[in-house]
Amino acid sequence: MKILNVELGDRSYPIYIGSGVLEDAKIITSHIKTKIICIVSNTTVSQLYLENLKNLLDDYQVIEAIIDDGEEFKNYDSLNYIYTKLLENQCNRDTTILALGGGVVGDIAGYAAASFLRGIPFVQIPTTLLAQVDSSVGGKTGINHLLGKNMIGAFYQPQAVVIDLNVLKTLDNRQISAGLAEVIKYGLIWDEDFFKYLEVNIENLKQLDFDHLEHVIYRSCEIKAKVVSEDEKESGIRAILNLGHTFGHAIENCLGYGEWLHGEAVGCGMVLAAKMSLTQAWLSESEFDRVKDLIFRANLPIEKPKIDYENFIGAMKLDKKNKDKEIYLVLQQGIGKAIVTNKYSSSALDDVIKS
Amino acid sequence: MKILNVELGDRSYPIYIGSGVLEDAKIITSHIKTKIICIVSNTTVSQLYLENLKNLLDDYQVIEAIIDDGEEFKNYDSLNYIYTKLLENQCNRDTTILALGGGVVGDIAGYAAASFLRGIPFVQIPTTLLAQVDSSVGGKTGINHLLGKNMIGAFYQPQAVVIDLNVLKTLDNRQISAGLAEVIKYGLIWDEDFFKYLEVNIENLKQLDFDHLEHVIYRSCEIKAKVVSEDEKESGIRAILNLGHTFGHAIENCLGYGEWLHGEAVGCGMVLAAKMSLTQAWLSESEFDRVKDLIFRANLPIEKPKIDYENFIGAMKLDKKNKDKEIYLVLQQGIGKAIVTNKYSSSALDDVIKS
Repeated sequence: MKILNVELGDRSYPIYIGSGVLEDAKIITSHIKTKIICIVSNTTVSQLYLENLKNLLDDYQVIEAIIDDGEEFKNYDSLNYIYTKLLENQCNRDTTILALGGGVVGDIAGYAAASFLRGIPFVQIPTTLLAQVDSSVGGKTGINHLLGKNMIGAFYQPQAVVIDLNVLKTLDNRQISAGLAEVIKYGLIWDEDFFKYLEVNIENLKQLDFDHLEHVIYRSCEIKAKVVSEDEKESGIRAILNLGHTFGHAIENCLGYGEWLHGEAVGCGMVLAAKMSLTQAWLSESEFDRVKDLIFRANLPIEKPKIDYENFIGAMKLDKKNKDKEIYLVLQQGIGKAIVTNKYSSSALDDVIKS
Repeated sequence: MKILNVELGDRSYPIYIGSGVLEDAKIITSHIKTKIICIVSNTTVSQLYLENLKNLLDDYQVIEAIIDDGEEFKNYDSLNYIYTKLLENQCNRDTTILALGGGVVGDIAGYAAASFLRGIPFVQIPTTLLAQVDSSVGGKTGINHLLGKNMIGAFYQPQAVVIDLNVLKTLDNRQISAGLAEVIKYGLIWDEDFFKYLEVNIENLKQLDFDHLEHVIYRSCEIKAKVVSEDEKESGIRAILNLGHTFGHAIENCLGYGEWLHGEAVGCGMVLAAKMSLTQAWLSESEFDRVKDLIFRANLPIEKPKIDYENFIGAMKLDKKNKDKEIYLVLQQGIGKAIVTNKYSSSALDDVIKS
């Protein structure tokens, strides 16, 4: 097992990474100082792990809030369902929320924790690769609004993140690939050597080789933790973690949430961002090919789905990074470095969107 | 004009107090660093002050979100109405929310600011005495849930609070008295001399003598700012600001929100808390009489409305201060000092509730 600390002053917390860590009660309970636990999960994940988890928590009063499975349920109705469960059970600040699931569960459970009684503690147990390397780390919580993804939320840090590799065995290939999209992102924005490592080992990762996976999850969390430590509330550098997301969110928004997995949209979005970087001569042809190639080998889509231009650009205009109605993009400067900028040719952007 | 600084590290902010401060554009605009302003107000207050305020803000793009007037509208529907206005206008983090109204508007607008895009700046312009001395200061924001008051929210500090005494002229007597309840509270929990000052000057305050009011608002904000600076997120001493509120919230909850004004419920709640303190011999008979007397002279109710015991105690059990299903109360230890405790005779509590 590896332990990584996210350094955020009095909001610092550890990430435990290893196979079987979810069977060790002490890892979880050492971070629960309350008498009541509310486990938030979804209908799919709860069937796999809820009973085992509850067996570890004999000493607590345990409440469950099981929401429907899918991005389309990351909304106020699901959030309110959690609030209602908490209130019906007369829960007060002496309650810890345990988020057991993928990114949707983590985001919504984290936001429930941030907003219930103006904040109660929570622990993340991410059960998808994407959640393990990305959404469970860094404190971004929230829900979707009818008019845009992740528009409502809070920066709110967990007490701990517990990552068990074993849970990856129950994921299908599409979900593994979706997680690999975010892994590739860390190479692209921060660490060329890591990108090379992924080029060499992508097949091992797709086949769930635990040694390679543990390294890759650790390094992904480490890069994310480093960026988040420097800029917790995204006033600057943290925005580079959004590589591929401006395009990706627009794809998800236009196709309808759930049609493509988030990681699939981000994978394709990173190809589009690389294409933009190529037009600005910040990425060479051969670098662009390497980016596209690795994303393709991770079984992620590299071609933009057919979407009407006006719809697509309209969705991009909703992005949280934008200022003064201008679209800000995260673009590559070579492999291993990214910048957030509005200094690009807008006709090039039009071409990429229309391609 | 007086200026008071709330000391909270990088979340510190000034409170401006004076008559006519709302006519000085610079006071407000010096705290707005964004190009877009969303004014949140209600149907009553907006008719009085919205046009004047907008005239001061010529250099900005101004959006309005006007919610219905009343505690019963401090809910998710009103909050979502604000989100929708912001999203329809493609607002991003380059937007400041201006809360123009009483406690309901301030709480809901502040929570919209806390949660929209995970946080945008906001400025408070409280237009009731109660909001000026209490809810606009300290960063408690939120909405009610069907199952309890203020159950959903965030600790989120404004950029500034702008308190104009002139707005008090349009309030009716009931609302002035409701504000005086919170003013009296500061004397009771923190400052016996201030309590004596109120005993002497209560008539001047009811008649809106501006010199006395300015002093009283300043001192109230000063005490609140001091307590909040010591314990921003209510893990300890901040809870004494809840004097009268455990009973008061139960009254509001059982009668239906809006039946009594919040300040009226708190006034009566402080009498009930004093009665409890009397039973524990922490308050003498004569001190109890002084408390009841001042609350009475402020035209606040001192008799508990008829409410079924089970309903009342059930509502008290929802209080956020409670731990391990035990009701924690804020009680007096003489005049000018308060404690949060579960060490009281529960039969005495039953007697007080049944009285």
